[in-house]
Amino acid sequence: MKIVQKTITLKARPRGFHLVTSEILSHLKELKSFHAGLCHLFLLHTSASLCINENADPSVRHDFLAFTDRLVPENEPYYTHTLEGSEDMPAHIKSSLYGQNLTIPINTGQLVLGTWQGIYLCEHRDFASNRKIYVTMIGE
Amino acid sequence: MKIVQKTITLKARPRGFHLVTSEILSHLKELKSFHAGLCHLFLLHTSASLCINENADPSVRHDFLAFTDRLVPENEPYYTHTLEGSEDMPAHIKSSLYGQNLTIPINTGQLVLGTWQGIYLCEHRDFASNRKIYVTMIGE
Amino acid sequence: MKIVQKTITLKARPRGFHLVTSEILSHLKELKSFHAGLCHLFLLHTSASLCINENADPSVRHDFLAFTDRLVPENEPYYTHTLEGSEDMPAHIKSSLYGQNLTIPINTGQLVLGTWQGIYLCEHRDFASNRKIYVTMIGE
Repeated sequence: MKIVQKTITLKARPRGFHLVTSEILSHLKELKSFHAGLCHLFLLHTSASLCINENADPSVRHDFLAFTDRLVPENEPYYTHTLEGSEDMPAHIKSSLYGQNLTIPINTGQLVLGTWQGIYLCEHRDFASNRKIYVTMIGE
Repeated sequence: MKIVQKTITLKARPRGFHLVTSEILSHLKELKSFHAGLCHLFLLHTSASLCINENADPSVRHDFLAFTDRLVPENEPYYTHTLEGSEDMPAHIKSSLYGQNLTIPINTGQLVLGTWQGIYLCEHRDFASNRKIYVTMIGE
Repeated sequence: MKIVQKTITLKARPRGFHLVTSEILSHLKELKSFHAGLCHLFLLHTSASLCINENADPSVRHDFLAFTDRLVPENEPYYTHTLEGSEDMPAHIKSSLYGQNLTIPINTGQLVLGTWQGIYLCEHRDFASNRKIYVTMIGE
């Protein structure tokens, strides 16, 4: 049994739901040394999320954004946290609704994902910088 | 320390929130060999979810469905991913809002759950097939 | 590699989003003995949640409550689970939307959290008692 930990950085992206499976895997060459285990991805931010959804049709990601922007609207009269921009407080809420951490199985050196599953970076801010993920791989 | 991984299959169910604790446990006889650890359940799909909620009154599961169908409506004019049925895009969104993965503690050969906690399979499609869960048990 | 498990109790709080990082850490002196690992927090309840969000401006927590109470309203005519109080069924739904379990990396004896990240106890009931978290620390 062993543990490998590292911080990886995803490039900055506009507001939206972005398929980042390949970009994450490009940073995790260490996966190959695990026969069986878990890979924990922990996004070190409070206005973006990690989630899993369809890896094929880009229209799914388009509709995620359209729905989520309506679910958590900007400029609600009862918001009091308004100094950092109209999309900041909605970004915090969206971040926790979709969550910032994912645990994915590892088997024979690869992430175990269903046929249609990919990893989304959900960017809820309009002008975000790079996003950092703290990765922990544990297994044998 | 050891790891056991396996894929289990839950029988097909109609759209709704279904209590599946017993069905999952019936596939996890290996739990008995763990004194302490974690059990990670990873649903290999993008239109269903796993979550934890009340294991007693079925009215809770009824109301989860009624609320969730209103939270993420079908046939929104701004949906563009519409070819797979009117409930398909909402199913993707619901899948990520409730999430597809759960980690539950293991102690003395059993899952550690609160008195009122059970595992729900949240089926968001109308005519889904069997649902597969990739299970990783890690511990000692 | 080792595992430490324990149940910790958070004091009762009113309905709201509460920053509990310090209270949780005060119960987890064992973290110091881990060089690298994962800390899994599992809330043993179905009407409260654990999530991660901003640890600084209290207005964020205020707005989380205001938004969440509107997202999942009380007294909806289609609710059938109504005997335990008007906020009970909404509390169940909120509990699963934000989730009851969190996994946080451990490095050099401390939880790895982003600069602005803190742990929230999301209390969805009006008159809740203490809340119990089953903690599993695994690593080396």
